[in-house]
Amino acid sequence: MSVILLTPDELTNSSETRLSLEDLFRKDFVLHNPEARWINDTDVVYKSENGHVIKLNIETNATTLLLENTTFVTFKASRYSVSPDLKYVLLAYDVKQIFHYSYTASYVIYNIHTREVWELNPPEVEDSVLQYAAWGVQGQQLIYIFENNIYYQPDIKSSSLRLTSSGKEGIIFNGIADWLYEEELLHSHIAHWWSPDGERLAFLMINDSLVPNMVIPRFTGALYPKAKQYPYPKAGQVNPTIKLYVVNLYGPTHTLELMPPDSFKSREYYITMVKWVSNTKTVVRWLNRPQNISILTVCETTTGACSRKYEMTSDTWISKQNEEPVFSRDGTKFFMTVPVKQGGRGEFHHIAMFLVQSKNEQITVRHLTSGNWEVIKILSYDETTQKIYFLSTEFSPRGRQLYSASTEGLLNRQCISCNFMKEQCTYFDASFSPMNQHFLLFCEGPGVPVVSLHITDHPAEYFILESNSMLEEAIQKKKTVKSEIKILHIDDYELPLQLSFPKDFMDRNQYALLLIMDEEPGGQLVTDKFHIDWDSVLVDTDNVIVARFDGRGSGFQGLKILQEIHRRLGSVEVKDQIAAVKYLLKQRYIDSKRLSIFGKGYGGYIASMILKSDEKLFKCGSVLAPITDMKLYASAFSERYLGMPSKEESTYQASSVLHNIHGLKEENILIIHGTADTKVHFQHSAELIKHLIKAGVNYTMQVYPDEGYNVSEKSKYHLYSTILRFFSDCLKEEISVIPQEPEEDE
Amino acid sequence: MSVILLTPDELTNSSETRLSLEDLFRKDFVLHNPEARWINDTDVVYKSENGHVIKLNIETNATTLLLENTTFVTFKASRYSVSPDLKYVLLAYDVKQIFHYSYTASYVIYNIHTREVWELNPPEVEDSVLQYAAWGVQGQQLIYIFENNIYYQPDIKSSSLRLTSSGKEGIIFNGIADWLYEEELLHSHIAHWWSPDGERLAFLMINDSLVPNMVIPRFTGALYPKAKQYPYPKAGQVNPTIKLYVVNLYGPTHTLELMPPDSFKSREYYITMVKWVSNTKTVVRWLNRPQNISILTVCETTTGACSRKYEMTSDTWISKQNEEPVFSRDGTKFFMTVPVKQGGRGEFHHIAMFLVQSKNEQITVRHLTSGNWEVIKILSYDETTQKIYFLSTEFSPRGRQLYSASTEGLLNRQCISCNFMKEQCTYFDASFSPMNQHFLLFCEGPGVPVVSLHITDHPAEYFILESNSMLEEAIQKKKTVKSEIKILHIDDYELPLQLSFPKDFMDRNQYALLLIMDEEPGGQLVTDKFHIDWDSVLVDTDNVIVARFDGRGSGFQGLKILQEIHRRLGSVEVKDQIAAVKYLLKQRYIDSKRLSIFGKGYGGYIASMILKSDEKLFKCGSVLAPITDMKLYASAFSERYLGMPSKEESTYQASSVLHNIHGLKEENILIIHGTADTKVHFQHSAELIKHLIKAGVNYTMQVYPDEGYNVSEKSKYHLYSTILRFFSDCLKEEISVIPQEPEEDE
Repeated sequence: MSVILLTPDELTNSSETRLSLEDLFRKDFVLHNPEARWINDTDVVYKSENGHVIKLNIETNATTLLLENTTFVTFKASRYSVSPDLKYVLLAYDVKQIFHYSYTASYVIYNIHTREVWELNPPEVEDSVLQYAAWGVQGQQLIYIFENNIYYQPDIKSSSLRLTSSGKEGIIFNGIADWLYEEELLHSHIAHWWSPDGERLAFLMINDSLVPNMVIPRFTGALYPKAKQYPYPKAGQVNPTIKLYVVNLYGPTHTLELMPPDSFKSREYYITMVKWVSNTKTVVRWLNRPQNISILTVCETTTGACSRKYEMTSDTWISKQNEEPVFSRDGTKFFMTVPVKQGGRGEFHHIAMFLVQSKNEQITVRHLTSGNWEVIKILSYDETTQKIYFLSTEFSPRGRQLYSASTEGLLNRQCISCNFMKEQCTYFDASFSPMNQHFLLFCEGPGVPVVSLHITDHPAEYFILESNSMLEEAIQKKKTVKSEIKILHIDDYELPLQLSFPKDFMDRNQYALLLIMDEEPGGQLVTDKFHIDWDSVLVDTDNVIVARFDGRGSGFQGLKILQEIHRRLGSVEVKDQIAAVKYLLKQRYIDSKRLSIFGKGYGGYIASMILKSDEKLFKCGSVLAPITDMKLYASAFSERYLGMPSKEESTYQASSVLHNIHGLKEENILIIHGTADTKVHFQHSAELIKHLIKAGVNYTMQVYPDEGYNVSEKSKYHLYSTILRFFSDCLKEEISVIPQEPEEDE
Repeated sequence: MSVILLTPDELTNSSETRLSLEDLFRKDFVLHNPEARWINDTDVVYKSENGHVIKLNIETNATTLLLENTTFVTFKASRYSVSPDLKYVLLAYDVKQIFHYSYTASYVIYNIHTREVWELNPPEVEDSVLQYAAWGVQGQQLIYIFENNIYYQPDIKSSSLRLTSSGKEGIIFNGIADWLYEEELLHSHIAHWWSPDGERLAFLMINDSLVPNMVIPRFTGALYPKAKQYPYPKAGQVNPTIKLYVVNLYGPTHTLELMPPDSFKSREYYITMVKWVSNTKTVVRWLNRPQNISILTVCETTTGACSRKYEMTSDTWISKQNEEPVFSRDGTKFFMTVPVKQGGRGEFHHIAMFLVQSKNEQITVRHLTSGNWEVIKILSYDETTQKIYFLSTEFSPRGRQLYSASTEGLLNRQCISCNFMKEQCTYFDASFSPMNQHFLLFCEGPGVPVVSLHITDHPAEYFILESNSMLEEAIQKKKTVKSEIKILHIDDYELPLQLSFPKDFMDRNQYALLLIMDEEPGGQLVTDKFHIDWDSVLVDTDNVIVARFDGRGSGFQGLKILQEIHRRLGSVEVKDQIAAVKYLLKQRYIDSKRLSIFGKGYGGYIASMILKSDEKLFKCGSVLAPITDMKLYASAFSERYLGMPSKEESTYQASSVLHNIHGLKEENILIIHGTADTKVHFQHSAELIKHLIKAGVNYTMQVYPDEGYNVSEKSKYHLYSTILRFFSDCLKEEISVIPQEPEEDE
């Protein structure tokens, strides 16, 4: 009896309505983000669906065309920003991605009125490629970063002033992050901050001179392609050192260092947050290298003196280190989320109000919220109404709703967004105007994203800025995926499992399953966010059920679930995912012989660990840019979860995919990696392959030459079709038949 | 109607006798090469099947054990050489391959008598890693190369003398080849030659200071793996310059440069051959960069003066440039092969005798052989009998037989090997003892290789040194492949097509086909050489017919067939291979829907060009380390066939796989490449992949991290099983059936 593979029935009439990979790349499937933002309390600037940049006055409904869409074409510009005085636009062209957020570009300044343009170049440099360029906060203030030094222009006509001179490529970074700060600490490449009046600039100086360099090879595009290198501290290696400076821009420039708290002076530390709270004061968060002590200071930038406002310690690690506290105008009050214990369910992030006693600088704390849910983000504090606006998961852990709460009395809490487009919208973000009179509401799911403008006092009166109606229509024409959430009970936790079913799902049939891993610890896969991607095609076209499960290590469901992975990375996540699969195997509609798994980055790591485990549940798995050994990954990440490798050799070894690789023997694995990945080096897959070859394990692979962690737009279709083909082939129904004549031809 | 794939019938009882991939890696499947060589006219040194190094006297049959096999184990040595006085052995350990022939190693000198050992190190260096070390030609003379400089020791006790000081890693090479000379010109890493009396050493100084460096990345084995670079001139790039020196070793060392012919002094040229013809004279071959003018000179090493003996020019390029002319002892006669026109069939290589008139240095030439066949190698000239010994294809173009010919009178020619083990042996090599009294005969196929010792006067009396009986026995137990040769007529040429059939082949059945490409132009695939490799497994286990075809561009069938590729590389080969496939398609037993192709290096290039062509004959193809653009490949190779790229842009473009890549759209391709390939850079596959992704073409790939052009022993099994699985899957019989119920489970 031979095994016969059967391709899915492709000829049924229903195929017209199935979602195809081609659909995802169609113009009408593009999600449009208008990038709307407040420029004052009544005016919003945004990019319309047809590409015009428009200023909208929310009170008069008057719109002003600031920039025609053709301007972008003329200058081959792909990014823009409007000057604070609304007279000029900075247009970036030749944009080249560096790391996750950072990019180099060349810039022109465009006069909205006269349509005059001129290049933005450092003094005595032509055709410069800049690491950063942006308007300041007043008038036509401009800063840009070139060769790791910051340049300032008071207005577009004046000449540039170089604010730093220590910058050195790959060694000293001023005002811009190195790889580690960008990817793992600030989650931004911007490492400078304007004072509200535009008179001062705070900036980081990151010194990578002792950090080992990683070499990224190049293979294409030249006869002799040149390799590139950049500082990348792997676990336990020398980290960059950091200093925080403030330079005053008016009058003779003068630079002052803001000093770390005394207890950090002789230790290694990170700076994870800097924010101006007045024209002369900044609030700064300092975090020690093991990431279990965090100190919040307020610094007087005229003297450089910093005073400690709040210190946190943890037995595991401290999360949410980029959160910016919201200060009252006089600085006597600030709001921040802190972990608050909620009985047996552990700590949840809740808003605390910190009151600074003016006489003795003593601080008293009042907790404004509590419950088995999380405050996601504090948006604004309205001094007149004494209300605080924030996003939370109170309504549902998978949603994000906008709430207000009184900071006085009974702390009355009110959901503002809960009744807004109820069916379509349960996952929101919001942005308040400077005086809190209005807010932008970003509905991000489960329906097609919508951006609306609201009056704070009458939130139900709104104006839709972007409805993504084209996308909505395009999706309507397709079979849609049905989604269901089940709550699994594992070790006292209630954990959500989301299943996406083909539209014509019938529970008397049996279906193949794809389990998708999250890309980072502390993330959340099961949410109400709008989602349409290659996996939707798999559900629709290949009749596969896609499952996502937020087990231990996932975020936004209290700190206890998240912190379970401390020193046990790659172990508890694996257990929970397997438990979820075992639950699914009890469902009649899951074909136990056709289970598969996918993960990217850290998700590729977890997927590999699951495939390696003794439970041989999966027929195949695909890993994209997988981390295979935490020792090869970034210091700030690996050490957060596993400590320093020198002391924790066994922890690191136990967590390595490369250890006991034989576990991967029976699976069918597709490994995908870009050779120029600067986040998870190709090294990870190379080591994995080397170990697999040594162990005689078969696998399939796909290499993207000179592509990074996120493959370029031009390779995305290829990547997706590779993944889809792999799963489609692997998850095909198998039917055994007895061949009639073994060697007969068709 | 769906397509159903059927796996081959694996459960029939005959499976025991099928050749499996595992078999190839079994100990008894290893072909043993005793590395036998003459140390004088009666003694041969060789390594026995169990690893002892033995001296055998052919006259007395007495054997002396020089080195026990355990000695290799004790010193972890993998290579050895015995000193000319037979008292010492040089043992190499920690051998690390660099390029095709070159390797680094550490060495110990082992006293055969006392078993004393000492390390071989340059003065004031410990635990050195040497680029080369070997005995000289007299007594205990030793030379070694360290940091690109040559060191000499008159005997093992004396201290080392550094003969050169200009050596500089990756820049100036003394006595050792750079990449280009090793791979494309000398076909050896050794670039120095001893005078017969051991008093002088000729050596090349290769200067790569202006040659661009290629970077070879490393991915594994360290937290921060370091890339390596080495000079590699791609087509049209700056080549190394070369000088030939002679140093006298007795008395005060004195180094003299041997000058190129006047006409080459202001041109770029290569040196392709150096040989001593007496204790003070060398013969040197100089070749201009376009490789169409070659000058043979004899140089007086006491003065440095070189006199021109023979000049060749060609409309295409000149081949066989490594051939060493055989000189009479007095230097008045020498023998060499030269192209000789044989009517309409073009030129064939035949032996010419050059007589140097002593008075005026005038040279007269006499042709000793002629016919539509090739002289492969002149082995020896016996002064007493005035006979010349050589290998030729006279008996069959696929074979190599040992012949003698008189250099006088009627030039009587006699086949010496033609009747020796007729069934088993038709492909020979031979090595004559210094005085031509005896010879070693190496039977290399079609049967299992055999090494035998013969008396020249009575060649039928012989002694078998190595019969590879274990291998013979192992093969006997397996189903063997049946081979058949068909001669195809293409454009007036008669070209051989070899087919390997499964043992139980029946011409009423239909079989899948694999067409295998040759690895280099000028090679020969269809020969009587013993062959057992992964493709034999495919024939035996998967019932696939393997075809090899020597079309235009192949060697040893006259120069006309070879030179047809000049300036048409990648075009005529493609035409001929397609013609061969079309011939096969007329055979009833070939299943036209299951054709496949394989090629490595240049063969991967031709395979890609065939897959790209308009003829869509193949279901799938695999390319290993494929050249994809001749501009990215070595100067000496690409320019030989295509000229300089600056002038010949269109020639290069037309020959590139990357050009019009859409032609590859419909095929199923497996691309395999080691990332540390120093011959065909990974760049070739990277560019191919990049172009395929851009064109939306699917392919499968296999990357061997940090492996070279030839994958290491430890990865070989993986490589072969990857290739076999690919072809086995692709070439499976397809049977169409109507599925009973589309979504029913097994």
